[in-house]
Amino acid sequence: MKMSNMLISTLREVPAEAEIDSHKLMLRAGMIRKMAAGVYNYLPLGLKVLKKVEDIVREEMNAASAQEFLASAIIPAELWQESGRWDAYGAEMFRLKDRGERDFCLGPTHEEVFTDIARNEIKSYKQLPVNLYQIQTKYRDERRPRFGVMRSREFIMKDAYSFDKNQEGLDLAYDKMHDAYVEIFNRCGLDAKCVAADSGAIGGSNSAEFMVKSEVGEDDVVFCIQCDYAANIEKATSKLEEVEKEERMEIEKIATPNSRGIDEISEFLNISPKKTVKTLLYNIDGKIVAVFVRGDREVNEVKVANASNASGDIEMASHEEYIHAAGCDIGFAGPIGIKADLTLVDEEVKNMYNFVAGANETGYHIKNVNYGRDFEGTIGDFRKVIEGEKCPVCGGKITIARGTEVGHIFKLGTKYSEAMNANFIDEDGKEKPFIMGCYGIGVTRTMASIIEQHHDENGIVWPLSVAPYHVSVIPVNVKDEEQTKVANELYEELISMGIEALLDDRNERAGVKFKDSELMGIPMRVTVGKKIGDGEVEFKLRDGEMEVIKIGDVSNMVKDQFEKSNLKLR
Amino acid sequence: MKMSNMLISTLREVPAEAEIDSHKLMLRAGMIRKMAAGVYNYLPLGLKVLKKVEDIVREEMNAASAQEFLASAIIPAELWQESGRWDAYGAEMFRLKDRGERDFCLGPTHEEVFTDIARNEIKSYKQLPVNLYQIQTKYRDERRPRFGVMRSREFIMKDAYSFDKNQEGLDLAYDKMHDAYVEIFNRCGLDAKCVAADSGAIGGSNSAEFMVKSEVGEDDVVFCIQCDYAANIEKATSKLEEVEKEERMEIEKIATPNSRGIDEISEFLNISPKKTVKTLLYNIDGKIVAVFVRGDREVNEVKVANASNASGDIEMASHEEYIHAAGCDIGFAGPIGIKADLTLVDEEVKNMYNFVAGANETGYHIKNVNYGRDFEGTIGDFRKVIEGEKCPVCGGKITIARGTEVGHIFKLGTKYSEAMNANFIDEDGKEKPFIMGCYGIGVTRTMASIIEQHHDENGIVWPLSVAPYHVSVIPVNVKDEEQTKVANELYEELISMGIEALLDDRNERAGVKFKDSELMGIPMRVTVGKKIGDGEVEFKLRDGEMEVIKIGDVSNMVKDQFEKSNLKLR
Repeated sequence: MKMSNMLISTLREVPAEAEIDSHKLMLRAGMIRKMAAGVYNYLPLGLKVLKKVEDIVREEMNAASAQEFLASAIIPAELWQESGRWDAYGAEMFRLKDRGERDFCLGPTHEEVFTDIARNEIKSYKQLPVNLYQIQTKYRDERRPRFGVMRSREFIMKDAYSFDKNQEGLDLAYDKMHDAYVEIFNRCGLDAKCVAADSGAIGGSNSAEFMVKSEVGEDDVVFCIQCDYAANIEKATSKLEEVEKEERMEIEKIATPNSRGIDEISEFLNISPKKTVKTLLYNIDGKIVAVFVRGDREVNEVKVANASNASGDIEMASHEEYIHAAGCDIGFAGPIGIKADLTLVDEEVKNMYNFVAGANETGYHIKNVNYGRDFEGTIGDFRKVIEGEKCPVCGGKITIARGTEVGHIFKLGTKYSEAMNANFIDEDGKEKPFIMGCYGIGVTRTMASIIEQHHDENGIVWPLSVAPYHVSVIPVNVKDEEQTKVANELYEELISMGIEALLDDRNERAGVKFKDSELMGIPMRVTVGKKIGDGEVEFKLRDGEMEVIKIGDVSNMVKDQFEKSNLKLR
Repeated sequence: MKMSNMLISTLREVPAEAEIDSHKLMLRAGMIRKMAAGVYNYLPLGLKVLKKVEDIVREEMNAASAQEFLASAIIPAELWQESGRWDAYGAEMFRLKDRGERDFCLGPTHEEVFTDIARNEIKSYKQLPVNLYQIQTKYRDERRPRFGVMRSREFIMKDAYSFDKNQEGLDLAYDKMHDAYVEIFNRCGLDAKCVAADSGAIGGSNSAEFMVKSEVGEDDVVFCIQCDYAANIEKATSKLEEVEKEERMEIEKIATPNSRGIDEISEFLNISPKKTVKTLLYNIDGKIVAVFVRGDREVNEVKVANASNASGDIEMASHEEYIHAAGCDIGFAGPIGIKADLTLVDEEVKNMYNFVAGANETGYHIKNVNYGRDFEGTIGDFRKVIEGEKCPVCGGKITIARGTEVGHIFKLGTKYSEAMNANFIDEDGKEKPFIMGCYGIGVTRTMASIIEQHHDENGIVWPLSVAPYHVSVIPVNVKDEEQTKVANELYEELISMGIEALLDDRNERAGVKFKDSELMGIPMRVTVGKKIGDGEVEFKLRDGEMEVIKIGDVSNMVKDQFEKSNLKLR
């Protein structure tokens, strides 16, 4: 592309609307423009990158034997009513009516649509397994759209849905998608970690997120600094601390009239909070659930919700319910004799000796409590992991970072196929619901995340695989006939090799051209200046040093970069 | 693609919902499925063709120096209010509100959006000319969606918008788009005629439609059977018949008490309707417009509306208005002495001698009326062209056929740039509105139109350029190891050449495989059967005879077809 023919929309100033680097740079480089809050137009430069990311996604999905579909964005309400999500989805769903007053939504996701496709098109186990995907525009009316295309209301997503006849098939499909995602993010030059995620009441290792570390991420992600362990904070666990064995002593009730919280009781008794146990009471779907964790711990409510098969968000017990369950005022509840429908005991508590807990009597605590001897309950992991704990896999140190989700793989099982009566005839002649998985990649968000990971103070530093153009050829002075001639020849040579080259033939100062090239993140720059008298030009990688090379060596230098990036020239 | 891995959705029966061949075949071949009235999902086979049509459009648009954008489908109401179309667009526009109760629409077209982009990004004449396009999903809530993707409510369109500093620039941009469209439809194997179209009150040759002849088309198109002349019925004209010269006679009032219509008066006076003139009275924006055409003619109301600068649809004068203008009962109005705000006289009437017309007196007509001597008015073309008339260009015979519009090119001028204050600084330092053009192609409709023109009783007959797959390789008996081996080798050879091949490795009867291949319209078929004993296979073009050829000749036979179709192998 000759830049004199190109609508160039680079901005020197940082737009006020942008908070994060990728958003600022996408605006400044002329990749996107805002149409409304969370709604963007893609300018040619942005669209070129978007198409490259899409193509990488498409190639890897095809390589994983998935088949590309394209569903409508408009979806009739009836499908969502079948699955029960028409009402459940809430304000995040854009809804509209047609001229006949029929209800539709703009698809925020397509489980219902693809379950419908499968029940219409797939009759027999012989047609399974099948994995259907699309790269399509999605709509979510976010409460707070932010950060450009990182959290927008109209965005492009790759969503895939697998259909299998049994659990083994689903496990295989899920693993294939995992591997494809690793490959996709690698090829995009994105350092994305696969993180075990909570998958609600279904339980098991049924869901993983691909997270990119980002200061502006929406989620806390737990990483081991030593091994590959990574998990969503809601799912993360830690290695239990070793506890020194003690002799179990007799329980002893002690008056603690002014000590309600863990800090107060530790101070009053002059013991570590690690020698106390905290009691929390929840009302979960009308049942009282008592949770016990070590005194210095926080309860992980998602884990509690899962263990309680909660239908939705959980809430703390009311003051009244607390008094009824514990028989005392707030601050004095404890494990011995509490009246709860379910008792959840963190595994760490099981290992403790002679700890202090509430006595279920106002003004009193009990010393030397021991699990098993003094009380029992359901043992499990109910605590929040904190920075500096030990990795459950290797024992290394755990760190917590903010992250952005760029992909999600999920074993759905029969949730949608049962609700929507989507069945096939199995080998035994019986009708069975499809075993489903779903797999998403935020394509536009991936593009923004690449910029978050690849930029400097001068602009974007695209990985070659997704760069809008590979090389910019810059004649320093377009009024110099010789420079223009050499630049043109180099440009034509690169184009003929299948390289996407830019020729900056604008009548601008070289400095302006360099700045635009750096801002747009073009990986290689060839500057054609006075040195052509010696048969030389300047070659510079976007993130490297300038070299003076022979004109005849340009094409090989460019080829080398393709080889280093494992990219084929077309 | 191996067909055993493919979700095949061919249907043997003709779906009841489909009325026209392309719709039936897209359903039967497994290209599309209906999601709601006028809303379709694309199955893999349909999507593959769609992408090929898109790629052809993209290549030709890029070759014409247009730059690809991607605008949002959601558009804020404010932009449409600026242009005045928010209210004007009516029920065809899908409207919705976001969670903050802000009004949006789903873009039915994008003039406003691209005018907004231009006014933000283009400041100077130096940046002009610019042509911006996108291939994007559009939404129109059609009153009567029909014929599958031919007239649907969610569809894919290529829309382009050109911005120029003057009329010459626009003329050039328009001509470039015309040429690109000719190339696009040619490459798609579509016989599309460029037809002069009415462009409303703007007048002039500012608009053309690319029409495909189709029995189910929505428009009447006038073609010359001898030359290239073609026009929308609303715009079409014809060569005037030669009239034998007569001596002008004195006018004569005659009593015609029972003869009101042209048929009655012709019969009563025993003359040809061609010797009479018909009077029609309209109320156009509150003014009375009298129109005179030869007695056997129909009035073309679009031409009348344009000549009257009508703001919208026009309507016949009321009975009262008729009496007031003509001073008589309906059936007796005529040109002499009629009280009208505007008098439009068809050019054919000007050439007539001694004709009969109403007397503007109930029960009377006048003989020997002559234009110029007895009345005057604005001369122009106000008649409807009919089958069998003479071509205005070459005098050949005119024929009228139904057609479907697949493309439209349109000189907008400053309609949107003035309404939306979209200006640039011209060479003289003055602010001027952009001179705009807009150019659309119905991509999904083009796909359906190709099928309308390329099918037979067994299915689709794809042109090679847009075929979902080029060749299907069919082993007759997959249980025969030798057949399977040869078929696999041929398949792999074709794939390695960059051919998109299908291997029908399903355990089905050969007849089933042939039927599917024909239904899906695969251009070439290689059948691997018992003749492999003699080193031979069968080669058949979709619309040709079967030939027995040597196994080693398959690749050359396939290459020949690419050459014949002017297609390059990748």
